[in-house]
Amino acid sequence: MRPSGRTASQIRPLAFTRQFTAHAEGSVLVEFGNTKVICTASVTEGVPRFLKGKGQGWITAEYGMLPRATHSRNDREAARGKQGGRTMEIQRLIGRALRTAVDLSLLGENTITIDCDVIQADGGTRTASITGACVALVDALNFMLAKGLIKKNPLRYMVAAVSVGIYQGTAVADLDYAEDSAAETDMNLVMTEQGEVIEIQGTAEEAPFSFAQMQQMLELGAAAITEIVAEQKRVLAKE
Amino acid sequence: MRPSGRTASQIRPLAFTRQFTAHAEGSVLVEFGNTKVICTASVTEGVPRFLKGKGQGWITAEYGMLPRATHSRNDREAARGKQGGRTMEIQRLIGRALRTAVDLSLLGENTITIDCDVIQADGGTRTASITGACVALVDALNFMLAKGLIKKNPLRYMVAAVSVGIYQGTAVADLDYAEDSAAETDMNLVMTEQGEVIEIQGTAEEAPFSFAQMQQMLELGAAAITEIVAEQKRVLAKE
Amino acid sequence: MRPSGRTASQIRPLAFTRQFTAHAEGSVLVEFGNTKVICTASVTEGVPRFLKGKGQGWITAEYGMLPRATHSRNDREAARGKQGGRTMEIQRLIGRALRTAVDLSLLGENTITIDCDVIQADGGTRTASITGACVALVDALNFMLAKGLIKKNPLRYMVAAVSVGIYQGTAVADLDYAEDSAAETDMNLVMTEQGEVIEIQGTAEEAPFSFAQMQQMLELGAAAITEIVAEQKRVLAKE
Amino acid sequence: MRPSGRTASQIRPLAFTRQFTAHAEGSVLVEFGNTKVICTASVTEGVPRFLKGKGQGWITAEYGMLPRATHSRNDREAARGKQGGRTMEIQRLIGRALRTAVDLSLLGENTITIDCDVIQADGGTRTASITGACVALVDALNFMLAKGLIKKNPLRYMVAAVSVGIYQGTAVADLDYAEDSAAETDMNLVMTEQGEVIEIQGTAEEAPFSFAQMQQMLELGAAAITEIVAEQKRVLAKE
Amino acid sequence: MRPSGRTASQIRPLAFTRQFTAHAEGSVLVEFGNTKVICTASVTEGVPRFLKGKGQGWITAEYGMLPRATHSRNDREAARGKQGGRTMEIQRLIGRALRTAVDLSLLGENTITIDCDVIQADGGTRTASITGACVALVDALNFMLAKGLIKKNPLRYMVAAVSVGIYQGTAVADLDYAEDSAAETDMNLVMTEQGEVIEIQGTAEEAPFSFAQMQQMLELGAAAITEIVAEQKRVLAKE
Amino acid sequence: MRPSGRTASQIRPLAFTRQFTAHAEGSVLVEFGNTKVICTASVTEGVPRFLKGKGQGWITAEYGMLPRATHSRNDREAARGKQGGRTMEIQRLIGRALRTAVDLSLLGENTITIDCDVIQADGGTRTASITGACVALVDALNFMLAKGLIKKNPLRYMVAAVSVGIYQGTAVADLDYAEDSAAETDMNLVMTEQGEVIEIQGTAEEAPFSFAQMQQMLELGAAAITEIVAEQKRVLAKE
Repeated sequence: MRPSGRTASQIRPLAFTRQFTAHAEGSVLVEFGNTKVICTASVTEGVPRFLKGKGQGWITAEYGMLPRATHSRNDREAARGKQGGRTMEIQRLIGRALRTAVDLSLLGENTITIDCDVIQADGGTRTASITGACVALVDALNFMLAKGLIKKNPLRYMVAAVSVGIYQGTAVADLDYAEDSAAETDMNLVMTEQGEVIEIQGTAEEAPFSFAQMQQMLELGAAAITEIVAEQKRVLAKE
Repeated sequence: MRPSGRTASQIRPLAFTRQFTAHAEGSVLVEFGNTKVICTASVTEGVPRFLKGKGQGWITAEYGMLPRATHSRNDREAARGKQGGRTMEIQRLIGRALRTAVDLSLLGENTITIDCDVIQADGGTRTASITGACVALVDALNFMLAKGLIKKNPLRYMVAAVSVGIYQGTAVADLDYAEDSAAETDMNLVMTEQGEVIEIQGTAEEAPFSFAQMQQMLELGAAAITEIVAEQKRVLAKE
Repeated sequence: MRPSGRTASQIRPLAFTRQFTAHAEGSVLVEFGNTKVICTASVTEGVPRFLKGKGQGWITAEYGMLPRATHSRNDREAARGKQGGRTMEIQRLIGRALRTAVDLSLLGENTITIDCDVIQADGGTRTASITGACVALVDALNFMLAKGLIKKNPLRYMVAAVSVGIYQGTAVADLDYAEDSAAETDMNLVMTEQGEVIEIQGTAEEAPFSFAQMQQMLELGAAAITEIVAEQKRVLAKE
Repeated sequence: MRPSGRTASQIRPLAFTRQFTAHAEGSVLVEFGNTKVICTASVTEGVPRFLKGKGQGWITAEYGMLPRATHSRNDREAARGKQGGRTMEIQRLIGRALRTAVDLSLLGENTITIDCDVIQADGGTRTASITGACVALVDALNFMLAKGLIKKNPLRYMVAAVSVGIYQGTAVADLDYAEDSAAETDMNLVMTEQGEVIEIQGTAEEAPFSFAQMQQMLELGAAAITEIVAEQKRVLAKE
Repeated sequence: MRPSGRTASQIRPLAFTRQFTAHAEGSVLVEFGNTKVICTASVTEGVPRFLKGKGQGWITAEYGMLPRATHSRNDREAARGKQGGRTMEIQRLIGRALRTAVDLSLLGENTITIDCDVIQADGGTRTASITGACVALVDALNFMLAKGLIKKNPLRYMVAAVSVGIYQGTAVADLDYAEDSAAETDMNLVMTEQGEVIEIQGTAEEAPFSFAQMQQMLELGAAAITEIVAEQKRVLAKE
Repeated sequence: MRPSGRTASQIRPLAFTRQFTAHAEGSVLVEFGNTKVICTASVTEGVPRFLKGKGQGWITAEYGMLPRATHSRNDREAARGKQGGRTMEIQRLIGRALRTAVDLSLLGENTITIDCDVIQADGGTRTASITGACVALVDALNFMLAKGLIKKNPLRYMVAAVSVGIYQGTAVADLDYAEDSAAETDMNLVMTEQGEVIEIQGTAEEAPFSFAQMQQMLELGAAAITEIVAEQKRVLAKE
């Protein structure tokens, strides 16, 4: 039995609030149950030095957590003077995932910076970040189209993510903190709306896992992502 | 005429959402019009080294701004590897203001860390932070009383803050960004519920100001703070 | 009774040594009693990036304290790898104060960097810094005029600063360390030679203060600044 | 056809030089073709603060690359003043992988620090690091047994790693730099000697991949790891 | 002919001002011509961790330069966030030189921190620092004796330093900036009052030098140091 | 008697392995007995800002030590976030020494970066670094000649280095760690193939030394460097 009473394949209630803050070209509050992340997409002219003059755009991501987003307070990274390894790992993942979703050659020499800031954490913050950021990204691309900054929508496909794991011997989808901290295995899956894989990251926390177990996790994950993409699209269909 | 159409003494709509996030002992979303700040108060056992064994508690504050809280995106301080001078100045101000509000000798060897994170900025983020943080602080002190961590409420008085300034020659209260960026003078006022001053910081942005102008600003500020404290108390009176 | 035996309005012996060091365009040792600060003004061609091509100049300030300027040794900020919050706050204050004193549009695309380095501290280092830096600034502006770097003197007015406070219930001017560390309230006042306010920063250290007390402090401060400006002018009148 | 002329499942010549340097308790030069990494395992008394008094040990890892291990010189991380995101990600991966291989409760309050320093890079440096580090770790554990620092060998299983990918539409094992930089997909696989998965990290560089493609990569990877573990054991069997 | 008109062996006018600042246990302004350095020696209880419990003391040094001590302004190291290589090299040199002058086993578990801050630079700042610091150190040791912190004077010998070099083919003593920046070779010599060498650092700036040239420089240096030590002693003999 | 059984003037077995790694224009493993350093010379187009447009080249050096190159593990400088004073001092020394060996005006606007990374330390790592780096530098210069990047070989002379010291009262050459850590005096000598001095750095570790002792050390050092240069040339003579 899962601590939340959910079935093995059941994901948490999912919510996207678009235009959550006023200034960003895309701004989404994403909620996977009690995990809440503000995802903004900011459009700026110009690209990083290594891309200058190549006629293409860039997408990059940064990730942060409010110090008291978690059960006990974490040090503020700005105060400690550096981003931790976990933060860097996550923001690199978010950036990679969203870059594959966009044909950068159609973006002009513009940069979209994704900021994912966790205001409340209950497991799965990185997958929620990717999922919410994709909605914010679509809003930003639509802003660029509306303003004439780009001619053609460069979005290749929607991207969504979910965590899956082995909890008490059973594969389960969308782990919350209670499960995550006790899971034997934790896997993050980033997929396209067509059901192809963009990124898979699986870690044996307690015990190594078999190919058969991985198979079960992948199936749960693929099903969850289908649901999540449907919700992304439903929310984006509204004006 | 003020850009917002407000009268000289009129403050922006004020809102406090208590229990805004789940984990902190005190968690308040404060809104001064379009300025929105998440203020959390986190209670931890122990005090900084310089206070060890003195039998008293400590209150400290940190301040941050989401990169896209503002019109154009600011660099993330955690990524730049240090907090800027403005951030340091503000968080020192918040900490000082709240420490005066509490009898630290009644707090035991406990630390309350205030985090003020601006999710949307429209002027007056530091005064909103102090005002919201005071509500979060009261919730945290009540938590400590309820848990038996302290015997007696150490709160001396409520603290609130507001900005006042000279805009187009006229003293006005609670400047928004449009006014703030064009003001001749900007003054931040932190006061107690009894109408005494905890901190005053006035800066001539464009032109030095006279004692007479300061007098006008102080009167507007004192009146605004009376209103703000009333709202803090109203919100705290609810269960 | 003040520890120094001074009357409430009496400031400490004030001294300015111009050309204190050899290389800077303006170089002043300022002494407020036992507080001693070396203030240099360095002229360099060019302006920070955000001002390029705007045809105006810039003034910026940095502040430091020798490790053993104080009773017990403080860590060297260069060795710790960052400037503390107090340092940043002070150098931002000095920079703001001196920028208002100068019509930057008459400065050409030149930058004047003010360095205030405390070699001996006995309270009031930030106000001494501003006061001494203004004299160094005037020397640097005269250097620029003499060298033909600028056509017209861009100085709007002399700027001076002093601290005032409530010590044992009484308002006093120009607090030394013994008073400062025991004061109920500490206020730094930066004013023009015309008696207008450029910056006011008042902090309740121990107890909030009333508008009436603030009024007393302002009067003492204004009188002290009149004296200080007279001395600045007297010293600058010498060749 | 692979640039190296290898078949799809063929891994590069593999070599382990034990006792490569003199001081470390375990010191191995691992070579996967032209990728060469010095892996040392250093035993020290004591554990990090968060483990003190729990009666267990700890394993942690650091990763670095000599500036000119690569085709063009990279900045030295020590000179830049911080480890990059890629470095942090890799060293966290190495640490996790080796911790699962050891029953930390049998290690006493000792720490083993793994250092993986790439002296020549030709793709697959992180998987080579894990593979070489496991051999160094075994040597360090044997040292501890011989010295009586531990009573029982805490090794649960050998751990090895390999990269697999999709190169020109075909799944291939153990990518070198020429393949890696052109691969559509790159996957790092860390497994136990029993063929169970400790970590899987797959990234679509160019195009998302299907579950079927992942299946092919996993099979190649599992076969490669079987070969690699055999070589680890052969080398460790020598005195 | 030397730019200053001095003879080859002639050192610059030398001055020591003891008790230059008020708080330090030893505080000396040392002047070698236009090179001026404030040297303080601060006594604190306790020793660095690596010496704890060994019953001996420690001496360490830090070095800095005011930003405008030089012809053109240098960045403030505290603002840049780190001490440069030159600074580190110099402060390590000062620390080593003074530690040899003292029998640390007679110092108790106390630390003396030497701070050398250059307020005006005209060549030879590191040798002036060592020379001035030795006087400050003696004052601090006498303070410790007077306060009963130590029983016996731990000073082994006076230490002094001077630079020598080859300027336009001729060996000269105590180079000023004009010579130093054009010298073919620059050598810093730290010696005891008995004429033994504590540290020698010679660098070919322009052209390598012969053993014969080195011999000439050493002789000039030894003679200069004899003069300098005499002046140190003369100054210390005064009450 | 020396711990190694060597005679006073006897240096350790010396070995240079050219083309030690694949990518650098010059790559040498240098061994002085058990001290082993990888020295690479990397050629890049362009020069640092301060040399732009002057038509000359630049040579710079960086130095590092693998964390477990030593008896007990040292912190990784990249992880600590800064290079220590010792590292900076050494890399500045290496850079200076090699710059004098080259006529920078014949190098074009190219930079050669020397990296010296100690993989095993047994005393004398800085002198081994200089000695090995000179061989790598020659290989890089020959690469530049072969590629037509430069017209004429800018090498002025070979450079080599050795440490000498006073061990148990006797002058000895090429100290290993056992001697170095017990030496009364340690001197590093960098010389040209013609027997002229580029750099001399002597430090009294335990007791100051006399000019006579220095003379003995210099003679031993000069003889050792003659041997070392012969070996550099022998190795470079091979294709």
